[in-house]
Amino acid sequence: MADKVTPLRETDAEARAIATGLIATARIAAPGVVEPETGAPFVSQIAFGLAPDGAPITLISDLALHTQVLRQDPRASLLIAAPKPRGDPMAHPRLTLRVRAHFIPDDAPERPALREDWLAQHPKSRLYVGFADFHLVRFEILTAHLNAGFGKAYALDRNDLKVT
Amino acid sequence: MADKVTPLRETDAEARAIATGLIATARIAAPGVVEPETGAPFVSQIAFGLAPDGAPITLISDLALHTQVLRQDPRASLLIAAPKPRGDPMAHPRLTLRVRAHFIPDDAPERPALREDWLAQHPKSRLYVGFADFHLVRFEILTAHLNAGFGKAYALDRNDLKVT
Repeated sequence: MADKVTPLRETDAEARAIATGLIATARIAAPGVVEPETGAPFVSQIAFGLAPDGAPITLISDLALHTQVLRQDPRASLLIAAPKPRGDPMAHPRLTLRVRAHFIPDDAPERPALREDWLAQHPKSRLYVGFADFHLVRFEILTAHLNAGFGKAYALDRNDLKVT
Repeated sequence: MADKVTPLRETDAEARAIATGLIATARIAAPGVVEPETGAPFVSQIAFGLAPDGAPITLISDLALHTQVLRQDPRASLLIAAPKPRGDPMAHPRLTLRVRAHFIPDDAPERPALREDWLAQHPKSRLYVGFADFHLVRFEILTAHLNAGFGKAYALDRNDLKVT
């Protein structure tokens, strides 16, 4: 329902540029998940990076509540916002990705390259990337919602969000 | 399940001080809601303030997806994080509130005082606070989860979070 009654602008090159710019520069994201016992939402904070193919990735611990929820229900929403808004933060662009989480198995052939790529983007995580409870997770983008400021809302799909 | 297997520290005065400090200084929050058609999570960004009694409040538009969802399902989760983390953002404190949204009716006796209080905290919203589609919403805190940095997770209840 919601998107149908929210006035949306036609997605254009400017909207795509704002969205891919947010994805390309983000270092953190706020993931929302649905707690299985209650069906209620839960929002937390994760480190955010990009795989070589441009897919969003993260490194999360089994000790964190969001990780435990994602193992049961891989549906998530990732908020990506400009890091230091000045003035009215409601006037600044922010992007919501609707995603599905895919855990990278420890023995996956792709893992070593992803790990090096992650460390290049998040060098401080070298302190714990090797811990047994930490896992790389790839997010498959389903759709997205961009709010580029007052009255500037857009619906985007994964083809609008390719970061190369 | 999740909280049960997440190692939690005993909630102490330091944890309460970190949590209430985040609430008292936050100007924005990332609310998570559950989209009714799909049951999937959706995270966005809202302005954040406090009512005179210390309850979190916001000002949101009927045109926004989160507002439309909250009218159908008032369960939300609010992420509050330090605005400008330096170094590894995963080492910085962030607080997740589990809340229930209560829309303040336009003719509620408490509304004029709440509105003035809101404007004192968010003066730039004077430009649109009077628009018919904007509504003040009070969030009733149910429980909370504080992550104060690596290995420092706490479960809190509303009595731990009183901002005075």
